[in-house]
Amino acid sequence: MRPTIIPSRRVRRTHWTEQNTAAGVKTYTVYNHMLLPAEFESIEADYWHLCEHVQVWDVACERQVQLKGRDAARLAQLMTPRDLSTAKPLQGKYAPTCNAQGGILNDPIAIKVEEDLWWFSIADSDIKLWAAGLAQGYGLDVDVSEPDISPLAVQGPKADELVARVFGSEVCDIRFFWGKMLPFQGSDMYVARSGWSKQGGFEIYVNDAKLAVPLWEALFAAGKDLNVRIGCPNQIERMEGGLLSYGSDMDDQDTPFECGLGSYLDLNADVESLSLPALRAHATQQTRQLQGVLFASSPTSDSTWIELGDGLQGEIRSQVWSPRYQKHLAFVMLPFAYTHRHSTLEHGGVQGQITPLPFSQEALQA
Amino acid sequence: MRPTIIPSRRVRRTHWTEQNTAAGVKTYTVYNHMLLPAEFESIEADYWHLCEHVQVWDVACERQVQLKGRDAARLAQLMTPRDLSTAKPLQGKYAPTCNAQGGILNDPIAIKVEEDLWWFSIADSDIKLWAAGLAQGYGLDVDVSEPDISPLAVQGPKADELVARVFGSEVCDIRFFWGKMLPFQGSDMYVARSGWSKQGGFEIYVNDAKLAVPLWEALFAAGKDLNVRIGCPNQIERMEGGLLSYGSDMDDQDTPFECGLGSYLDLNADVESLSLPALRAHATQQTRQLQGVLFASSPTSDSTWIELGDGLQGEIRSQVWSPRYQKHLAFVMLPFAYTHRHSTLEHGGVQGQITPLPFSQEALQA
Repeated sequence: MRPTIIPSRRVRRTHWTEQNTAAGVKTYTVYNHMLLPAEFESIEADYWHLCEHVQVWDVACERQVQLKGRDAARLAQLMTPRDLSTAKPLQGKYAPTCNAQGGILNDPIAIKVEEDLWWFSIADSDIKLWAAGLAQGYGLDVDVSEPDISPLAVQGPKADELVARVFGSEVCDIRFFWGKMLPFQGSDMYVARSGWSKQGGFEIYVNDAKLAVPLWEALFAAGKDLNVRIGCPNQIERMEGGLLSYGSDMDDQDTPFECGLGSYLDLNADVESLSLPALRAHATQQTRQLQGVLFASSPTSDSTWIELGDGLQGEIRSQVWSPRYQKHLAFVMLPFAYTHRHSTLEHGGVQGQITPLPFSQEALQA
Repeated sequence: MRPTIIPSRRVRRTHWTEQNTAAGVKTYTVYNHMLLPAEFESIEADYWHLCEHVQVWDVACERQVQLKGRDAARLAQLMTPRDLSTAKPLQGKYAPTCNAQGGILNDPIAIKVEEDLWWFSIADSDIKLWAAGLAQGYGLDVDVSEPDISPLAVQGPKADELVARVFGSEVCDIRFFWGKMLPFQGSDMYVARSGWSKQGGFEIYVNDAKLAVPLWEALFAAGKDLNVRIGCPNQIERMEGGLLSYGSDMDDQDTPFECGLGSYLDLNADVESLSLPALRAHATQQTRQLQGVLFASSPTSDSTWIELGDGLQGEIRSQVWSPRYQKHLAFVMLPFAYTHRHSTLEHGGVQGQITPLPFSQEALQA
């Protein structure tokens, strides 16, 4: 018997926990002190449905850290090596958040809601405490809070059709990582083209608890003929698509370069960011990188450490069996001292092909 | 079927996860991004055993936030309204950590390990990010980290006997919340008289991963005739004892006064603490308090909100059925506007007696 998860106020329920329960959620994880479904029918059945139809996901755990006040933009910029000075209202930017050593503290989407109002839509770490600590120490005029705003994701190839039926066809014009304020039952909600899958779709930032279930019901009512189903972030789909999970694939001991996120840094920007000085230096000092590894069958080892010889090790950060490509996919942190001389490795009795992330179609189908 | 919890690197395993699995852990929770067992045989069977014998608990999730360097003591003091200036080396102090508004961010044990080295043995929030943000903003000369130090708790009335058999009889002289550095297989470990039960016992801070399983095995080998068993923090026992859980019973929207922790503040201390100015003002402005409520049977309502009339509400933060006292125990945040005029309340068809925390024996046995 696999262990269950015990409920408590500390591990928060969401506005849709009852809907998840009613749909028979089989597996949970905990994310930002909140329940996040991880499996309904099965990881594999959930995967095939996601890639063919459309799903509604309770991702309330993607909490918003809100920065509000005269120094909101300054604090937002301090927190990330990405240049936020060019952001327009309602534009989101994927913005790794780093400390002064260049270590990754989170990888949120930073959204400029208004001139003095930012949301960091966060991955799993209490970045509110980091933001509040900086605001306190630097004496900034900014209020840091976590408002009750719960994203609901609509993901899958039919997501445009479904969301257009509920919010109107203007959602189809929303560009990737941008959003619009659109009304639902009289309340304006931020609707963004984003989400933790490569199937396309939207995240609706539900800012009125009373409308959480009505919105859920409206989406399911409008999507019957689209075969809409309840779902959740899917390990197979996200690994095939090369999407990283903070805490699993990267943490504060890693830099954005090491995790393949260098293109999201603006090393030459003339902005006040805590991590930019360290990252500028690190750009030429990198010694390891997160890589994809493809195994023809699943390694038999339980260890997440891969012995590479000559005292070198790799660390498996995430792994899953892909039913589509009939391969075992792994994200592995590997030293250049190995990858500059080898394109394969062996682990648990199986040979793996080292390949850049995100995986190319050629590599997956090889 | 109750949902299970999915493993990932983000939800960290501990050095003893295999031991928990082998013992048939039935329920987990997640605490500081780490697995924490919550149930073995059953919450009730675990409870009776804990109160009569001795248990070994994997509480590796009580992570250490380490402050090291010239400004370590200054940063430690900034973080808490408790006067740390009098702490002696190897002394721990229960030290609520508060922001400048007086809101509680965590309730760690602050341990002065050496003159310039502090550990905050934390409850469930990323207080490392708060400490690091403050250090960055104030420009402090201090290194903030989370070393690989995993507490192993030995709790229960026979804990002194068991720990003395492994570490020597000098453990019996350790005073409450103090500790000694004691050798185990050649490695000095911090052994403190502390733990999240009222049955007495120790927490051993395992600072050498190689010794984690040997220590576990030594405790079980030495305790056979003491009926030693695997265990975990127990909801019945800790609520009967009035122990609070950060995130459940209190959070950053509460002050220490509201949670009955006023006696741990040093309002008159001449120390540099971020929260003391706000808390000095708040001392006379409190309008609500966490109280105990005792019900003769379990309320039938699923809601954690208690309607008190006149627009007043109470919030149930934790609750459990006590098999010993045959009462339903609740910790409830209640407005003075109600408690100053009433000593009972009604919820889910059952009348409850309002009583101070921790519960008195008289109240429990009434």
